[in-house]
Amino acid sequence: MTRAAAPLPAIPPDIVSAGDYERYAEKMLDPRILAYLAGGAGDEITLRANTQALEALTLIPRVLADVAGGHTRLTLAGEALSHPFILAPVGWQKLFHPQGELASAQASAVMQTPFAVSCMATETIEAVAGQGGPVWFQIYMQPARADTEALVRRAEAAGCRALLVTVDAPIGGIRNRAQRAGFALPPGMVAANLPPETAPPALKPGESAVFDAMMRAAPGWADIAWLVGATRLPVFVKGILHPDDAARAVDAGAAGVMVSNHGGRVLDGAPAAIAALPAIAARLNEAAPILFDSGVRRGSDAFKAIALGADAVMIGRPYIWALSVAGALGVAHLIRTLREELEITMALMGCRTLADIRQSDVRRP
Amino acid sequence: MTRAAAPLPAIPPDIVSAGDYERYAEKMLDPRILAYLAGGAGDEITLRANTQALEALTLIPRVLADVAGGHTRLTLAGEALSHPFILAPVGWQKLFHPQGELASAQASAVMQTPFAVSCMATETIEAVAGQGGPVWFQIYMQPARADTEALVRRAEAAGCRALLVTVDAPIGGIRNRAQRAGFALPPGMVAANLPPETAPPALKPGESAVFDAMMRAAPGWADIAWLVGATRLPVFVKGILHPDDAARAVDAGAAGVMVSNHGGRVLDGAPAAIAALPAIAARLNEAAPILFDSGVRRGSDAFKAIALGADAVMIGRPYIWALSVAGALGVAHLIRTLREELEITMALMGCRTLADIRQSDVRRP
Amino acid sequence: MTRAAAPLPAIPPDIVSAGDYERYAEKMLDPRILAYLAGGAGDEITLRANTQALEALTLIPRVLADVAGGHTRLTLAGEALSHPFILAPVGWQKLFHPQGELASAQASAVMQTPFAVSCMATETIEAVAGQGGPVWFQIYMQPARADTEALVRRAEAAGCRALLVTVDAPIGGIRNRAQRAGFALPPGMVAANLPPETAPPALKPGESAVFDAMMRAAPGWADIAWLVGATRLPVFVKGILHPDDAARAVDAGAAGVMVSNHGGRVLDGAPAAIAALPAIAARLNEAAPILFDSGVRRGSDAFKAIALGADAVMIGRPYIWALSVAGALGVAHLIRTLREELEITMALMGCRTLADIRQSDVRRP
Amino acid sequence: MTRAAAPLPAIPPDIVSAGDYERYAEKMLDPRILAYLAGGAGDEITLRANTQALEALTLIPRVLADVAGGHTRLTLAGEALSHPFILAPVGWQKLFHPQGELASAQASAVMQTPFAVSCMATETIEAVAGQGGPVWFQIYMQPARADTEALVRRAEAAGCRALLVTVDAPIGGIRNRAQRAGFALPPGMVAANLPPETAPPALKPGESAVFDAMMRAAPGWADIAWLVGATRLPVFVKGILHPDDAARAVDAGAAGVMVSNHGGRVLDGAPAAIAALPAIAARLNEAAPILFDSGVRRGSDAFKAIALGADAVMIGRPYIWALSVAGALGVAHLIRTLREELEITMALMGCRTLADIRQSDVRRP
Ligand SMILES: Cc1cc2nc3c(=O)[nH]c(=O)nc-3n(C[C@H](O)[C@H](O)[C@H](O)COP(=O)(O)O)c2cc1C
Ligand SMILES: Cc1cc2nc3c(=O)[nH]c(=O)nc-3n(C[C@H](O)[C@H](O)[C@H](O)COP(=O)(O)O)c2cc1C
Ligand SMILES: Cc1cc2nc3c(=O)[nH]c(=O)nc-3n(C[C@H](O)[C@H](O)[C@H](O)COP(=O)(O)O)c2cc1C
Ligand SMILES: Cc1cc2nc3c(=O)[nH]c(=O)nc-3n(C[C@H](O)[C@H](O)[C@H](O)COP(=O)(O)O)c2cc1C
Repeated sequence: MTRAAAPLPAIPPDIVSAGDYERYAEKMLDPRILAYLAGGAGDEITLRANTQALEALTLIPRVLADVAGGHTRLTLAGEALSHPFILAPVGWQKLFHPQGELASAQASAVMQTPFAVSCMATETIEAVAGQGGPVWFQIYMQPARADTEALVRRAEAAGCRALLVTVDAPIGGIRNRAQRAGFALPPGMVAANLPPETAPPALKPGESAVFDAMMRAAPGWADIAWLVGATRLPVFVKGILHPDDAARAVDAGAAGVMVSNHGGRVLDGAPAAIAALPAIAARLNEAAPILFDSGVRRGSDAFKAIALGADAVMIGRPYIWALSVAGALGVAHLIRTLREELEITMALMGCRTLADIRQSDVRRP
Repeated sequence: MTRAAAPLPAIPPDIVSAGDYERYAEKMLDPRILAYLAGGAGDEITLRANTQALEALTLIPRVLADVAGGHTRLTLAGEALSHPFILAPVGWQKLFHPQGELASAQASAVMQTPFAVSCMATETIEAVAGQGGPVWFQIYMQPARADTEALVRRAEAAGCRALLVTVDAPIGGIRNRAQRAGFALPPGMVAANLPPETAPPALKPGESAVFDAMMRAAPGWADIAWLVGATRLPVFVKGILHPDDAARAVDAGAAGVMVSNHGGRVLDGAPAAIAALPAIAARLNEAAPILFDSGVRRGSDAFKAIALGADAVMIGRPYIWALSVAGALGVAHLIRTLREELEITMALMGCRTLADIRQSDVRRP
Repeated sequence: MTRAAAPLPAIPPDIVSAGDYERYAEKMLDPRILAYLAGGAGDEITLRANTQALEALTLIPRVLADVAGGHTRLTLAGEALSHPFILAPVGWQKLFHPQGELASAQASAVMQTPFAVSCMATETIEAVAGQGGPVWFQIYMQPARADTEALVRRAEAAGCRALLVTVDAPIGGIRNRAQRAGFALPPGMVAANLPPETAPPALKPGESAVFDAMMRAAPGWADIAWLVGATRLPVFVKGILHPDDAARAVDAGAAGVMVSNHGGRVLDGAPAAIAALPAIAARLNEAAPILFDSGVRRGSDAFKAIALGADAVMIGRPYIWALSVAGALGVAHLIRTLREELEITMALMGCRTLADIRQSDVRRP
Repeated sequence: MTRAAAPLPAIPPDIVSAGDYERYAEKMLDPRILAYLAGGAGDEITLRANTQALEALTLIPRVLADVAGGHTRLTLAGEALSHPFILAPVGWQKLFHPQGELASAQASAVMQTPFAVSCMATETIEAVAGQGGPVWFQIYMQPARADTEALVRRAEAAGCRALLVTVDAPIGGIRNRAQRAGFALPPGMVAANLPPETAPPALKPGESAVFDAMMRAAPGWADIAWLVGATRLPVFVKGILHPDDAARAVDAGAAGVMVSNHGGRVLDGAPAAIAALPAIAARLNEAAPILFDSGVRRGSDAFKAIALGADAVMIGRPYIWALSVAGALGVAHLIRTLREELEITMALMGCRTLADIRQSDVRRP
């Protein structure tokens, strides 16, 4: 699995948006890796719905408003951020760029954008944190609590500012596109922060791999409460689409929830993440901050998510396209572009600050 | 009419879903046979609606639920089934594979999946039952009750577990795609379980082939009551879309009804079968089990149908694609794939058993 | 302007529906004539809406109903018809076939289907009536009442059974497709029933061709009342889309109204004709028969129109496609096909007669 | 940047609508200029919505109405106009034709159609006004009031009949299509009515180009009130989509408001302009005239906008396509075509005058 082309040393002038990075990445990546990156679960209904539902929302601009001196600053879980974009946890980044997570971390440092390092990173959390940017750590609950606790300790020691526990993927989604393309991790691609994988226990006859193996190992609500108690870091629960689950996460002590359908990669048929956001925001009623991802491609998408109740948004594929095309430089440029798009949207909507963004600014079709 | 290619001895790695079998079958079958298989009535509005309406339903996943030890078991008409997939009656299977229904029966035996043998099968019901799987028999009411009764006796003797009487096709739909392709049964293709066809009586001048011939021979509600009384097997009435007809079938003694539009092959303009399901489930109000087909392509489609009131689902074209591509092995692999998709959907929806699936799990657009 | 190919002497086996005739006609006609035939006004939004709105209606079939001995007969304006299809007035038929209206008339005679001869026919009404089929005559009110009266007398004398006065096209629609293709009547193409056209009076400076010329010559409601009084034939008013206009036509003495948007050829932006039908049927409340056209392509479309209030339907382009492809034979075959489609639809819907078709049989999306 | 082809000396016979000019212009213009002209902001969701939302509105025609002697006249801000089409301000017209704004002005003179000259014109307002047509002037508030006032004085002196102050673009939209194409003003392309641009003040570290530079220079409501007081011309506020802003503009003394999203060129995600019109018309309740643009391509679009509350409409891209293809002649021909389309629409809708057009004539989908 080799790239069709090496990352570019400079940003071509016809890359002016996230979608342009996608166009380039499609030509530069190995088709199998591309299928892994781009694909969603099943027939990709949810994947398509993510972007379509964001596009379908309309914004009624306000003219002649005084927004001079405005800004995009916010405070999230006690940290001051200069803008509401965060790099989502995406595993195996050496698939996309020789420097892998280190390149993303460099962009994060330059732009002072939090980088949520995946549990499946190909670089150690210590090395990533060493690049100097604000780092979060994403955790998949390990079968043995001791293993999870070890990860938590390393993340704390490395200076991570928050934990993100991903709960929407106790089993891998059925990623047919990647399967058809024959994607498999190339030899040497190793999860740098995890103990070596042990073979799962053999199934007895008649047992189901889903119900009797994978779901037996899967975490439950009690594990979330345990995790919250096991760390001094704020814990965000990633992958919530149902208001009841959002409320339960907060009850379990979570610092916040993350509305996400994992970029359409787990349950095909799940609603567009943005469609699930308003009911969750209504249920939580400001009790805890809400992060959002799945389908954000534009600064105006961030505006829409914030209007519907999010405090900040994560981007997944977009920065991986940028990473694939132009490494750390590409990621930094992408973040700058998104932030500028958000500023322009805010200015045209008459919003000086993120707090000025109201639900009534967005119309559903 | 020869196949473009012989069935494959092994399943290619890029076949990971029903849709992949379709893609292969399209290349491997004679275009006329493909037109017969794939086509629907008229402009195929209903055919397209079947899958689109299923795709449009959304599922809100639940996280961190305890589903360990879950399963897909159910009891249907007194029989224990390990999962809710049944092979729908599809006629003339030797068009698709040299072993015809025997190959499907072998997969049915291996997977313990009921196989509803078509009245238009190219193998005898005895031979099919001899493969050892659970067999149902689908009946078209014959013009002479004695002929119908003979079929019932053979089905009972062969060990069939249920009868399915198809009532939605008293006249063949207008299958324009097959007509345009010039499809006709090749010589030697014989309905192995039926008496040789006799020529219909000649029409008098001014008479209508529809109203004065075909519909005169067509069965009525009294015939259903008669059939129920003439067998000890449970009788399911296949092809119901109207709640009044569903209620009437149960009144006539049916063991259950089957919501179906015959895969879009009879009345073009009929609603997507899934759109008709909720009103029928509401009307029957658990008075009798409900089977469902027409458009099921994914385990998640089965989940959706069950949420809206079905007890089990049948698949038609999908297993014929698999049969065409890789014979019994293909059919077995397809069933396993669908079942696994269903298990994963259940797990992600927080449902341990089929009984946990609730109507509120599905949102209509 | 010559045809790409002569009409066929026999009907190819892959012509099994109106749409198949269209496909053939597209290859056989001169592109300019095709643009005239196929095109609608402006951007053809209404043209597309006509068929789409019919397709979007669903029909819930009824099973096991007793429809033996059913039929499609009706009485319309005192005439017994064997089925509810009528050939719509379409001008200049020699563009499409060397025998022009005579070929259509022959099919009309064979099938006993009324043929509404256009005011812009290329054959005399007497010659058309001489073919022995049931003939109607479509009138455009002439600037001079004497000219209109002369047409009425000829139609009466020739044995026409009804008049159709077309009121929706006081000015030609803006047929951009035909204009772009450079369509113009070829030399020798003459309106066989009309006095030679006289040049319109010159406009004074600042006058509008629309408001000061064409619309000054256009008829009004008083002219309809006059026409009704000037003939013993029933008069149908063709081209009604507003309930108020329908009521007014009946008040003016019309024998019935015809809901039509002229096949999308006059006002682009007008609603699909089928969308306008229910409100008109509600307003007239059986006070007068309702004809319907614009977009009928299938027997099931006729069923839908009847369910929503029509007594009979006209077809325009479909029979002209058939005429272009295979002359009288083609038209007769098309009528038979539509009638058979209607019979099958009725049978599957459990309707023995047209009177059994109820509004509740059709669901709007 | 050179044109692919020189403007045509005559209008090809297959140009019969605005869309035909677009088709020709696409072949005749330099691709970069075309991207600047055709493109919208971002993903062009709003750009597409503009035309789609107009197309989706339906018009129910009225037959046999007496509209003889009708007309399209109106009075707007004290001026008598023969029809409700106005040429929208479009900058840099020498990009599209060697004579630039002078050619548009000639068409405006011939057709007596107001031409709203852009603040970014490549010809002086005096030269444009010298062509003899009715001229308006569009103003972007200049950073220094003295500069704005100088523009106002020149417009007054040149005989302009109204001012249009554009308020929806305090910052340029993110025109990705033009950016990707590498569009930049060619050397020598100069804003003929503006003082030479001065470099913007440098940003301090951490400052935002949007909030701390562009939006500091942007005008506010007080500037509108000042402008109204500084001129004897009627001032229309261009670029309103929110009813509150419309009311505030009238409060500030505006002669009227212009509902527009700048042809989809500023905030991608803004609603189709036509979707915003009814609420604004309801709010203003005839307190002031309403202009409309963004997506008008047909006379029937003007009819729809007038039905929903507009007094007159502007066209942007359509006349620039015509200008590009055939200069002044093309623009005049386009205006004639639109006017004729409007007249025909009115006649078919039974409307003698613009005042006869009622909101109930338009149905929303
Ligand atoms: C290639 C890829 C790998 C991913 N890996 C992880 C992961 O390791 N952990 C996790 O919580 N989410 C993972 N995600 C999901 C992302 O964190 C995020 O939710 C998703 O990409 C957001 O949707 P978007 O791609 O439309 O922006 C992954 C997504 C992609 C595309
Ligand atoms: C080629 C073909 C043959 C069929 N033959 C029969 C049949 O003999 N009897 C019957 O009741 N249904 C028959 N059906 C309908 C199926 O039982 C079933 O209702 C339908 O295929 C379900 O829709 P699906 O194909 O979308 O899964 C046939 C369907 C197909 C595609
Ligand atoms: C080529 C053509 C010519 C037509 N000429 C006439 C005509 O002379 N008089 C008339 O009343 N309607 C005329 N019509 C309209 C038809 O009578 C009819 O309303 C329309 O074709 C119905 O729509 P359909 O084509 O979708 O079936 C014409 C239609 C076409 C396509
Ligand atoms: C190439 C181009 C340049 C424009 N320049 C200006 C301008 O200088 N000032 C302004 O107020 N509007 C400008 N507009 C917007 C138009 O005045 C108008 O609002 C818009 O084109 C209407 O939409 P339409 O193109 O769909 O008709 C411009 C539009 C285009 C396409």
